[in-house]
Amino acid sequence: MQTFRVDLGPASHDVHVGGALLDDMGALALGAGLKSAKSIIVSDSNVSRLYAGRVIESLERAGFSVTLATVPAGEGSKSEAVLGTLYDHMTDAGIDRSGTVFALGGGVVGDLAGFAAATYLRGIAVVQIPTTVTAQVDSSLGGKTGINHKLAKNLIGAFHQPRLIVADIDTLSTLPEREFREGLAEVIKYGAILDAAMIVNLEQSLDAILARNQGALEEMVARSLAHKASVVSADEREGGLRKILNFGHTIGHAIEASAGYGEYLHGEAVAIGMIAASRLSNIHAGLSADEASRLFRLLQRAGLPVEMPAQWRGDRFTRALKLDKKRSDGGLEFVLLDRLGHALTQKLDFDSIVALLN
Amino acid sequence: MQTFRVDLGPASHDVHVGGALLDDMGALALGAGLKSAKSIIVSDSNVSRLYAGRVIESLERAGFSVTLATVPAGEGSKSEAVLGTLYDHMTDAGIDRSGTVFALGGGVVGDLAGFAAATYLRGIAVVQIPTTVTAQVDSSLGGKTGINHKLAKNLIGAFHQPRLIVADIDTLSTLPEREFREGLAEVIKYGAILDAAMIVNLEQSLDAILARNQGALEEMVARSLAHKASVVSADEREGGLRKILNFGHTIGHAIEASAGYGEYLHGEAVAIGMIAASRLSNIHAGLSADEASRLFRLLQRAGLPVEMPAQWRGDRFTRALKLDKKRSDGGLEFVLLDRLGHALTQKLDFDSIVALLN
Repeated sequence: MQTFRVDLGPASHDVHVGGALLDDMGALALGAGLKSAKSIIVSDSNVSRLYAGRVIESLERAGFSVTLATVPAGEGSKSEAVLGTLYDHMTDAGIDRSGTVFALGGGVVGDLAGFAAATYLRGIAVVQIPTTVTAQVDSSLGGKTGINHKLAKNLIGAFHQPRLIVADIDTLSTLPEREFREGLAEVIKYGAILDAAMIVNLEQSLDAILARNQGALEEMVARSLAHKASVVSADEREGGLRKILNFGHTIGHAIEASAGYGEYLHGEAVAIGMIAASRLSNIHAGLSADEASRLFRLLQRAGLPVEMPAQWRGDRFTRALKLDKKRSDGGLEFVLLDRLGHALTQKLDFDSIVALLN
Repeated sequence: MQTFRVDLGPASHDVHVGGALLDDMGALALGAGLKSAKSIIVSDSNVSRLYAGRVIESLERAGFSVTLATVPAGEGSKSEAVLGTLYDHMTDAGIDRSGTVFALGGGVVGDLAGFAAATYLRGIAVVQIPTTVTAQVDSSLGGKTGINHKLAKNLIGAFHQPRLIVADIDTLSTLPEREFREGLAEVIKYGAILDAAMIVNLEQSLDAILARNQGALEEMVARSLAHKASVVSADEREGGLRKILNFGHTIGHAIEASAGYGEYLHGEAVAIGMIAASRLSNIHAGLSADEASRLFRLLQRAGLPVEMPAQWRGDRFTRALKLDKKRSDGGLEFVLLDRLGHALTQKLDFDSIVALLN
């Protein structure tokens, strides 16, 4: 097990990464200062079946009184309706301010359960127990929580830092192949924007990672989370530095939105977005053609899509790109690389982006 | 105009108290560092009619682009349904992270609009513009926001500090008499728990206050808010000191709940609760009989109810008291006075409370 601290002033907390950690959840929660009070595990229909039993057993052994809320798997659960069922469940279970929400699952469960914790009795403790690559290396850390509004994703939400993150890499063994590979896009992103040595390391260890070798996974998750932690610590509320985490996301979001949500997984769209952003980086920010092609090959080896989808020339893509929240005055603020391992933000003219993508 | 600062670290903000401030809202908002972006005023059907026009005009003069959301007056608007209409309104108006929610009204509007601001795009700025005595002296300050759940009041909520509070005491001139007097219960409470000299002052100025004399109201609101600010600054998340603000509230809540919400206004129930708590203080904490009777007479002169309601001996009252969240191990943590102007908390046996009330 590797443990490190996310430095967020009074909201600072530990992160544990390792194998067989679900069976230690109770002790780890007590170690984080949580009270063994009436608490709730929120999970989804896929993950609950596989792992909730072990978490319940461990928490009960540590004196917690636990109830389990299982929500349908998928983005549809980030809704006001499902959130309402969680409030009901928590009220019925008599959870008070000393209780904890344990979010056991991927990004959807983390966002939903985190927001329920943020808004129940004006905020109770949440522990993130991510079970997907994307959640383990990215979404579980940083305090972003929320649900979707009928008109916009993540419109309703709050910043609510977890009291503890426990990433049990054994849970990655049951992930479907496509979902596993999707998460590698965010891993490769950390190397691209922050850590050139990590890119070299990934080039060497990618086969072991794809074979889901324990040691390789633990190293990958711990190193990614440590990068995310350093960025979030420096910029908790996304005022500045945290923006570089959006590398590949501007075009990625436009692909997701124009292709219809679900056609591409988030990480797949981000992979294509990173390829596009590295081409823009080559022209506008000094990234060498060799570095851009190393990034291309790494994403390709990870089994991620690397070509713009056919429909990107359509009106829907253009409109989605123009609607991006980082837009201002006819330009788009883009995250670019001046070299592998270092990112900057630069405002690009909309037409020049489209010209380059051609 | 009196201005003071609420010291809450990075969430510190100003409070302005005075007359004709609605016409200066734009300048005051800019002075607080808010951006003149697309923003929303949330108000209720009573207050909107009287005051929204002046606030809109002032904000527009300062460059804000403002939309108005008017919700039905009354506690029923603290619901998930009405909150949903606010999210829709804010989305339709294109409000982004640089926008501000202006909460123009009493406690219901402040709680509802504050919670919408806390949870829209993970939190945008809110300015509290309280228009009732209760909101001006109490609920607008401290960051408590939220809505009701079908099973419990204020179950869903968040701490979200305002960026500015503007208490225009002119708005108190249009308050119905009963609602005006209700607010005096919280004013008298500050004197009782924190400021003996304020009790002397209220004994002298009560007639001027009841006549809604401008100078007397400004002094009353500013002094009350300054006390609330000092308590909240010392204990933002209600861990310790902030509990003394619940003086009179334990029995008050039980009266409200057992009489059916709406039978007593909150401040009326708190007035009765303060009388009961001062009797308990006389027996258990050293408050003199003379001091207890000064408090009694002051509340009586303010036109507030001072006798336990007939039905307090019933099961519903007992059950409501036992359900109080401050209960632990068969006892109730009570806020008591050891002298006028000084409070402490003490655990009292449930049976001895009931015996004394007889």
